[in-house]
Amino acid sequence: MNIVELIRKKRDGGSFSSKEVDYLIKEYTGGKIKDYQFSALLMAILLRGMNKNETSALTYSMLHSGNIINLSLLNGYKVDKHSTGGVGDKTSLIIAPIVASTGIYVPMISGRGLGHTGGTLDKLESIPGFKTDLTLAESKKVLKKCGAVLIGQTKEIAPADKMIYALRDVTATVESIPLITASIMSKKLAEGIDGLVLDIKTGNGAFMKSLKDANELANSLVDTAKSFDKKVIAFITDMNQPLGNYIGNWLEVYESVKVLKGEAKNDLYVLSIKLAGAMIFLGKKAKSMQQGEQIAKNKIENGEAFNKFLNIVELQGGNSDLINNPGKYPRSRFLKKLKSTHNGFINKFNTYQIGMASLELGAGRRKMDDIIDPKAGIILHKKIGDEIKKGETVCELHSDSQSKIKIAEQMISDSISFSKSKPSKQKLIKKIIR
Amino acid sequence: MNIVELIRKKRDGGSFSSKEVDYLIKEYTGGKIKDYQFSALLMAILLRGMNKNETSALTYSMLHSGNIINLSLLNGYKVDKHSTGGVGDKTSLIIAPIVASTGIYVPMISGRGLGHTGGTLDKLESIPGFKTDLTLAESKKVLKKCGAVLIGQTKEIAPADKMIYALRDVTATVESIPLITASIMSKKLAEGIDGLVLDIKTGNGAFMKSLKDANELANSLVDTAKSFDKKVIAFITDMNQPLGNYIGNWLEVYESVKVLKGEAKNDLYVLSIKLAGAMIFLGKKAKSMQQGEQIAKNKIENGEAFNKFLNIVELQGGNSDLINNPGKYPRSRFLKKLKSTHNGFINKFNTYQIGMASLELGAGRRKMDDIIDPKAGIILHKKIGDEIKKGETVCELHSDSQSKIKIAEQMISDSISFSKSKPSKQKLIKKIIR
Repeated sequence: MNIVELIRKKRDGGSFSSKEVDYLIKEYTGGKIKDYQFSALLMAILLRGMNKNETSALTYSMLHSGNIINLSLLNGYKVDKHSTGGVGDKTSLIIAPIVASTGIYVPMISGRGLGHTGGTLDKLESIPGFKTDLTLAESKKVLKKCGAVLIGQTKEIAPADKMIYALRDVTATVESIPLITASIMSKKLAEGIDGLVLDIKTGNGAFMKSLKDANELANSLVDTAKSFDKKVIAFITDMNQPLGNYIGNWLEVYESVKVLKGEAKNDLYVLSIKLAGAMIFLGKKAKSMQQGEQIAKNKIENGEAFNKFLNIVELQGGNSDLINNPGKYPRSRFLKKLKSTHNGFINKFNTYQIGMASLELGAGRRKMDDIIDPKAGIILHKKIGDEIKKGETVCELHSDSQSKIKIAEQMISDSISFSKSKPSKQKLIKKIIR
Repeated sequence: MNIVELIRKKRDGGSFSSKEVDYLIKEYTGGKIKDYQFSALLMAILLRGMNKNETSALTYSMLHSGNIINLSLLNGYKVDKHSTGGVGDKTSLIIAPIVASTGIYVPMISGRGLGHTGGTLDKLESIPGFKTDLTLAESKKVLKKCGAVLIGQTKEIAPADKMIYALRDVTATVESIPLITASIMSKKLAEGIDGLVLDIKTGNGAFMKSLKDANELANSLVDTAKSFDKKVIAFITDMNQPLGNYIGNWLEVYESVKVLKGEAKNDLYVLSIKLAGAMIFLGKKAKSMQQGEQIAKNKIENGEAFNKFLNIVELQGGNSDLINNPGKYPRSRFLKKLKSTHNGFINKFNTYQIGMASLELGAGRRKMDDIIDPKAGIILHKKIGDEIKKGETVCELHSDSQSKIKIAEQMISDSISFSKSKPSKQKLIKKIIR
């Protein structure tokens, strides 16, 4: 095998054998295939595609570039959830404790925010003391003790993915369904899970803008998971508005706590129950997804889910006092309420732009080494379909910088459109694929 | 402008402005765009294509990455020929002296052989003492004295092409019409020429296997030349068999001398006259291509072309005694005559394979730093359509190594097919585009 021949093969529309894929990943991670060769290959893959077998083989080789966490000593099903990300998407913080409280193990490896999207690790780290960089040994201990652990990608997990993602990022080769599939699945499979629930976001705040692309990615992920004999259910869900009402790291922890305490029953609650229900079903603690959802609701009502969250926070070194008494958390120096200039209804959001406004306020990062302000963000008082009167508050902006609030205010004003009549409701869950 | 955005633009099928193309070339040659980014861009260009304006802009930027030879002090038209290469293609050696003897300047920059193809520089260097690495000042002197000079690409000529070609070679991004066009034209335009004749080879010994691809390349080259206000005529010619009867460096010089002396009137002679005729027409020494061809024939018959060749050889340091007395040239240690095992006609050649057999004998190189044996090669006694009897010689193999002859013999036997009836004749010149 020869790298130039293999690039030519893909360039001309050919398909790789599993052996060829494995050669490519081994030689690239081993430094024998150069970056400039691998990036040409990535572009050929992006433009020519990969079939199911190639995608599965790519996932396999990337997975085996590192270690698979051995959880066989834990007696019980291990199930995780992965979301493709968006604005205000904080379901992991709610789902992990719900599902763990049913006796299913949730070994969750998450990422950081970049651009308009937030990241679970950044949200958790807004809790003072919360450690997401546990070693694998420490993670296993937490998992054994409380049934869930929320950590970042370690060096041992799919190192090929790290290398390849860094190259894709600077060569405009991110937006490829097979490459996205292998990147997600190689990390998720490394968790040693039995089942996986996928939340594929679609809409103007998602990476997959169109339902068609979301469908394609969902099917690719489901096919790949099945090829590894994993139980899988994929949800395609709406990201044409932020999920829930809070955007920004601590603000999202705060909203998660409200949902876990049964104090908020908004779209965030609805989706969290759906996803948790599916996980409980895959973890064999329910006979159907519906029954799983009922169990999830009960875990919120009887307080077990919230207690489990406190438990996780404590075991990962976080200050649980602030979870019990969120009023003690420091506030941003400035708060600006954005008032409506219209009578009518909220008709549309430019969700991407709202995510970027949140970044502007200090809640996000443009580059991976930017510093985040955990307090900063946005609270939406109104969402699509809500009636609003002139002078009523649309949203609140939180930041330590007045000038940032000014920029974000303009961005958000431009991102909200109003209508005179009530717009038709968008479905939150667009499709379930299994 | 940003490289990732530009890669994305081409990836998604967009077209670059001249400014964007210039940015890409300047930043890449300046080291600011990394190899791994440029190779992803090259793959996107290969798969998405470039329109006429982009190809012209790319040629312009690559041309201006170096110097254009200033020949304005030479009073007269400057015309060159470029061939896309094949097996036994030695027309440059014949054409340059013919055309120079009419008073047109021929500043010819040529390349070396690689793989199955030979290179003009290697052929010339088989003449002891012949120097192809003249400086630009030396080249101008030779050109002024005798009207032609045959040299290699200097550092001053289109350095961007050298960098980009090296990257294309190891990333399977060679076979792109716009990239090939810009590579050829940036070097040819740097010669400071007024007109250019192109010989686009097609067939099983050419880079462009299909007539469709050859047509596309010819049109792209012609369009680009015209966008620089250059006179241009492109010939699409047959490469389904070696051109002429001699393959190998000195053997090809020998055959060129035979043609220049009027001793051979084979396909090599016919094509050389055609190409020279077109150059003489572009250089305004004839009113039509036909008249140009007649002049070219006369220059052979009256001995001027051969004398001009001697003149060039002497001015570039070569031993002209060997041109006058080729019998003095050293012979290969071994000569093997391949005999026909059939009665019938030569029906087909695998021309690529014959080129590779010649390489095997010592006449070519696999890598750029391989050493060539100038004596080695093949003499074809028969060509397509020729009748042959069992026991008659099909070809001769010349090499200093018996084992190499053995390998080459097998390769050539496998490369020739016979038929009982006379095959229909292939056209030597398939199309003329201007």
